[in-house]
Amino acid sequence: MEEVDHLAHERNKAQFDVEAMKIVWAGSRHAFEVSDRMSRLVASDPAFRKDNRATLSRKELFKNTLRKAAYAWKRIVELHLSEEEASKLRFFVDEPAYTDLHWGMFVPAIKGQGTDEQHQKWLTLAYKMQIIGCYAQTELGHGSNVQGLETTATFDPKSDEFIIHSPTLTSSKWWPGGLGKVSTHAVIYARLIIDGRDHGVHGFIVQLRSLDDHLPLPGITIGDIGMKFGNGAYNTMDNGVLQFNHVRIPRNQMLMRVSQVTREGKYVQSDVPRQLVYGTMVYVRQTIVSDASSALSRAVCVAVRYSAVRRQFGSQDGGPETQVIDYKTQQSRLFPLLASAYAFRFVGEWLKWLYMDVTKRLQANEFSTLPEAHACTAGLKSLTTTATADGIEECRKLCGGHGYLCSSGLPELFAVYVPACTYEGDNTVLLLQVARFLMKTVSQLGSGKQLVGTTAYMQRAEHLMQCTSDVRSAEDWLKPSFILEAFEARALRLAVTCAKNISKAPNPEEGFSQLSPDLAEAAVAHCQLIVVSKFIDKIQGDIDGMGLKEQLQALCGIYALSLLHKHLGEFLSTGCITPKQAALANEKLRSLYAKVRPNAVALVDAFNYTDHFLGSILGRYDGNVYPKLYEEAWKDPLNDSVVPDGYHEYVRPLLKQQLRTAKL
Amino acid sequence: MEEVDHLAHERNKAQFDVEAMKIVWAGSRHAFEVSDRMSRLVASDPAFRKDNRATLSRKELFKNTLRKAAYAWKRIVELHLSEEEASKLRFFVDEPAYTDLHWGMFVPAIKGQGTDEQHQKWLTLAYKMQIIGCYAQTELGHGSNVQGLETTATFDPKSDEFIIHSPTLTSSKWWPGGLGKVSTHAVIYARLIIDGRDHGVHGFIVQLRSLDDHLPLPGITIGDIGMKFGNGAYNTMDNGVLQFNHVRIPRNQMLMRVSQVTREGKYVQSDVPRQLVYGTMVYVRQTIVSDASSALSRAVCVAVRYSAVRRQFGSQDGGPETQVIDYKTQQSRLFPLLASAYAFRFVGEWLKWLYMDVTKRLQANEFSTLPEAHACTAGLKSLTTTATADGIEECRKLCGGHGYLCSSGLPELFAVYVPACTYEGDNTVLLLQVARFLMKTVSQLGSGKQLVGTTAYMQRAEHLMQCTSDVRSAEDWLKPSFILEAFEARALRLAVTCAKNISKAPNPEEGFSQLSPDLAEAAVAHCQLIVVSKFIDKIQGDIDGMGLKEQLQALCGIYALSLLHKHLGEFLSTGCITPKQAALANEKLRSLYAKVRPNAVALVDAFNYTDHFLGSILGRYDGNVYPKLYEEAWKDPLNDSVVPDGYHEYVRPLLKQQLRTAKL
Ligand SMILES: Cc1cc2nc3c(=O)[nH]c(=O)nc-3n(C[C@H](O)[C@H](O)[C@H](O)COP(=O)(O)OP(=O)(O)OC[C@H]3O[C@@H](n4cnc5c(N)ncnc54)[C@H](O)[C@@H]3O)c2cc1C
Ligand SMILES: Cc1cc2nc3c(=O)[nH]c(=O)nc-3n(C[C@H](O)[C@H](O)[C@H](O)COP(=O)(O)OP(=O)(O)OC[C@H]3O[C@@H](n4cnc5c(N)ncnc54)[C@H](O)[C@@H]3O)c2cc1C
Repeated sequence: MEEVDHLAHERNKAQFDVEAMKIVWAGSRHAFEVSDRMSRLVASDPAFRKDNRATLSRKELFKNTLRKAAYAWKRIVELHLSEEEASKLRFFVDEPAYTDLHWGMFVPAIKGQGTDEQHQKWLTLAYKMQIIGCYAQTELGHGSNVQGLETTATFDPKSDEFIIHSPTLTSSKWWPGGLGKVSTHAVIYARLIIDGRDHGVHGFIVQLRSLDDHLPLPGITIGDIGMKFGNGAYNTMDNGVLQFNHVRIPRNQMLMRVSQVTREGKYVQSDVPRQLVYGTMVYVRQTIVSDASSALSRAVCVAVRYSAVRRQFGSQDGGPETQVIDYKTQQSRLFPLLASAYAFRFVGEWLKWLYMDVTKRLQANEFSTLPEAHACTAGLKSLTTTATADGIEECRKLCGGHGYLCSSGLPELFAVYVPACTYEGDNTVLLLQVARFLMKTVSQLGSGKQLVGTTAYMQRAEHLMQCTSDVRSAEDWLKPSFILEAFEARALRLAVTCAKNISKAPNPEEGFSQLSPDLAEAAVAHCQLIVVSKFIDKIQGDIDGMGLKEQLQALCGIYALSLLHKHLGEFLSTGCITPKQAALANEKLRSLYAKVRPNAVALVDAFNYTDHFLGSILGRYDGNVYPKLYEEAWKDPLNDSVVPDGYHEYVRPLLKQQLRTAKL
Repeated sequence: MEEVDHLAHERNKAQFDVEAMKIVWAGSRHAFEVSDRMSRLVASDPAFRKDNRATLSRKELFKNTLRKAAYAWKRIVELHLSEEEASKLRFFVDEPAYTDLHWGMFVPAIKGQGTDEQHQKWLTLAYKMQIIGCYAQTELGHGSNVQGLETTATFDPKSDEFIIHSPTLTSSKWWPGGLGKVSTHAVIYARLIIDGRDHGVHGFIVQLRSLDDHLPLPGITIGDIGMKFGNGAYNTMDNGVLQFNHVRIPRNQMLMRVSQVTREGKYVQSDVPRQLVYGTMVYVRQTIVSDASSALSRAVCVAVRYSAVRRQFGSQDGGPETQVIDYKTQQSRLFPLLASAYAFRFVGEWLKWLYMDVTKRLQANEFSTLPEAHACTAGLKSLTTTATADGIEECRKLCGGHGYLCSSGLPELFAVYVPACTYEGDNTVLLLQVARFLMKTVSQLGSGKQLVGTTAYMQRAEHLMQCTSDVRSAEDWLKPSFILEAFEARALRLAVTCAKNISKAPNPEEGFSQLSPDLAEAAVAHCQLIVVSKFIDKIQGDIDGMGLKEQLQALCGIYALSLLHKHLGEFLSTGCITPKQAALANEKLRSLYAKVRPNAVALVDAFNYTDHFLGSILGRYDGNVYPKLYEEAWKDPLNDSVVPDGYHEYVRPLLKQQLRTAKL
């Protein structure tokens, strides 16, 4: 078979060193090398094929996932992969599985909240997967409001045990991934009751299933909660329901790092500060931001390549038609998403650093930066997941009709991605948390309190509240200082306006509630500023490689100026910029699109995704879209026979006007 | 079983006559009565159940659709239903099927483009469903650009036939619904070639399958194009691929109303004006706008009811928590969608009127209003479908985690709805058509040419280009004249700015292309104005029923002011309003949310949807969400056994560290 690269002409146009950009995208040569090796390992192994996922029944799909998860673990053990390699391998297998929760939530929860003895016992088992764990917090009736959970863990001093119980239907655990069919153990959250007194929600390690025959232990009811959005997608995961009927566990299975229950039933706080849990949240959310850049970049990769393949209209004298990527509307929808993928990548990298910084400080008993770090990760989780979910769907639409086919890969990518807007904190609830933090910060302005990290800009409140932008030409809008000042002024002014309006309310709580839509917008503005500023930091740092800096500068400009365009009302109403300056920004944006255009395909090549990982005919590296779409169509089960099942019962009698006597 | 209405307290709060609103929503008492009767007929018939759709395999799903379609037709015939009733019945069956294309595209295409003899022959067969037809326009390589289709219909004067042929892979017909497995006939579009000369794309009636054994006729290859977005959803439809290998059809199967090929092979235009095809497009797109209001209202109904059931946070002294519908962020996301559902309903109603008006004028050989009507329906199709697709997904997110379950109904509603943004004209391509029309209109300003219909406002260009809003209080923003003027001024100024900028380009085409993102925004602004103005017309007309007018006024205000907030940058940068006035608009918006809040559940009750049609546990009329969610979960096939298929092969060996020897 001939191998033609239908996108070669696009690749030849690139004005930068793609191989060098791959390193920048990956974060380091080492990270690139690991990703590259793991993705090829997965892509080249037939055991990891994922082509028929859309037509499998739930049971077949799930069984196939169990197989892949076991096979992945087998390879991890056989090849003695490091933790980093193993996690990358699982990532490229690209199928949600119970192992995600085992490694991503169960292990970290025990690490973060367990004592040394608990680590010794449980992590040893978990690391070898001699037990499989999940994270069971959410209940049928309570998700966002964790403090409202109803499951109880009542201390029984006689037997030195906790009695775990689900007192109501709504207290059934509901949603935990890996729970429904696989997990042998769980970290569950329940109200700690001692001697009739409610000490609030705590974590407990509970064995759910027998290690002999996998049956639920006595008093435990477990099932799967049913089909979720999309074909394949998250249906490979056994999100579960769980009820406890007075189930007893030994006292030492409460996670006791932060607070303990003694043999005598005394509730004591250890000297480990409660803020520690923030550390785990920063960790988990940082991984979510990094996943956002992966998911968005994947969709963008598909849409950019297909937009270069797809031609529609504009043929001159019978020549080829225009590539749809050349339409300015296509560019104005697609390139901001390309820029966002890069932006989220860099802010994700920075969050990794932040997590390490926070951890170090925690170890040194320094907690002052925690609230800021916590607010910032909550906000960035919300911002990046919302933008990514919307962006994937936009990329699908940018592919026209063919984007609606499962073989485009985009429907599944969307369906599997969207819950990220909801889990680990509903995005609106998170924005309101950020807003609360912002209001507190604003209230302290002028008090002399040192503002740290991502709020440091508020230190210059006096200037930012009254400055007007000095932008005089379209070119000015490329200068980081002008962009930063506009974003800082907008964020601060929105926050200050909210604070002012709140102060007019009968009381602050009432004011906060009334103004919460505005507060959520102020929080978004603050978070966008963070992303913009980290992108700017990135391009102001060392970047080796021919042409890289120019491309990243263009993308940074596109990211910032497309946001400015989208939220123009905020920039104008707060007087941060003038309509004239807005028009200049638009002009600049157009010229940046033109600059990125010849580099677009190379900029998505830099993600270094294999065709296996992309899982999209439209996004194929070689651009050989049409023959492959055609080939794929015939694989649908409906094409097993020329005349469809049901013709004789339901179509022929209709055509022959014989329905009256047909059995329907 | 006890029957409790968990939403009774909400329904008791309503400040208007719900039964009267049902009539307003339906459009007339007659329309209400038909809808009500048909929806109950479907809901009460077990043959139309749709509960297990998400877990059916493609083949089972498709076969089940064939059964339902036949059964629906049987009932239509048995009950002697009118055309209106039959179409409503199919609507409430709520499952895409080949019949949609047969009735919605095949029949109208023949009606619109066929001659009287062709009507006589083909419509007679089609009306009785003795043949089943589809509409085959799109090809693998061409969708938006219809003029670029590659299929050929070459006239053979010897045999007096056309030879239909697919010369390339990309000329394969691709996407037509009903084609893949069911249709016996199709209207196909192909380039008419006579004596080597290409006369462009024309329609032809082609028999595809034998009426005896349903096998494709010689020279014809047909199949299904494979799985599409979502579970159930559009996978009940056999979108197909079709290739012709020199297939012959009699000359009289070319649709010859507008142009003919004579026995001698002469191509002649009839005196029927070409604009006639616009009439059909206005018709089809008007149904799409009406479907948009149905789909959006359905999602809103689910989200409003569930938001009233769902409680999270804010419990005082152990009392019940806050209903999430009381959070202002929830309201600011949800109520504009509720208002949009009503807005789209009314503009859809108006489009029905427009279609009749256009038809009447066509019959009187009056074509002057056609371009305006055509642009306006194209724009409204784009506007309403985009907003509806986004709105459904927003409603899903508003339901938190549970919205991600198929049993919420929202994932399937989204997946089945989104292609409306692409078919019958890609939404961006349509906006650019509107923009072209606007540029033409703007260029004629001041020429004395009378502007009609939805562009009449441009007649007042002089005033609208320089007026400033007189709004002085939040209350002012309720006055239709203030709202209209702001929307008119914004739409006109955006269009005029585009025209000015285009005139600076080397040539108009180049300018149009460079500015197309701005042009698309101007088109949106124009279309939003139309929707706002039709909503205002509605509330200024007669509306009977206690409290109805107040509610509709509030919804109209919410629709307009939430758009104003969303597009604030445009209103401010064009100087239509001031930042101060924007703040007043926001204030008014908040008070309107508060006004609608107690009526929200009743406002969705007015849609009169049965639980069958809604297909959502979260949206149940009685609000009895939790027990039903719980019940539903257990029906998943994964729950057939306690220990899942695959445990012995893939989980146990992993837990027992025996993977090395396992077959995976
Ligand atoms: C695919 C998936 C996987 C999951 N995996 C797990 C898991 O492994 N373990 C686990 O324990 N859980 C899991 N969850 C549950 C998840 O964490 C919750 O769904 C999430 O926390 C959101 O909570 P909720 O569903 O209660 O939403 P709700 O809080 O009910 O949200 C409904 C609406 O109310 C609004 N709202 C709620 N509170 C407020 C407020 N105070 N102010 C303003 N608005 C408010 C929200 O914005 C939203 O619009 C999973 C969920 C999904 C979808
Ligand atoms: C569910 C479904 C059912 C369908 N049913 C039928 C049917 O029954 N019969 C039938 O014949 N067809 C059917 N179609 C096909 C449908 O009509 C086409 O998909 C639609 O017309 C869009 O064309 P496309 O797919 O070629 O998109 P493209 O034109 O390839 O669009 C790709 C991208 O290019 C952009 N673009 C294209 N041209 C321009 C331009 N000039 N300027 C700026 N941007 C441009 C678009 O905005 C889009 O972002 C169906 C499609 C779907 C998804």
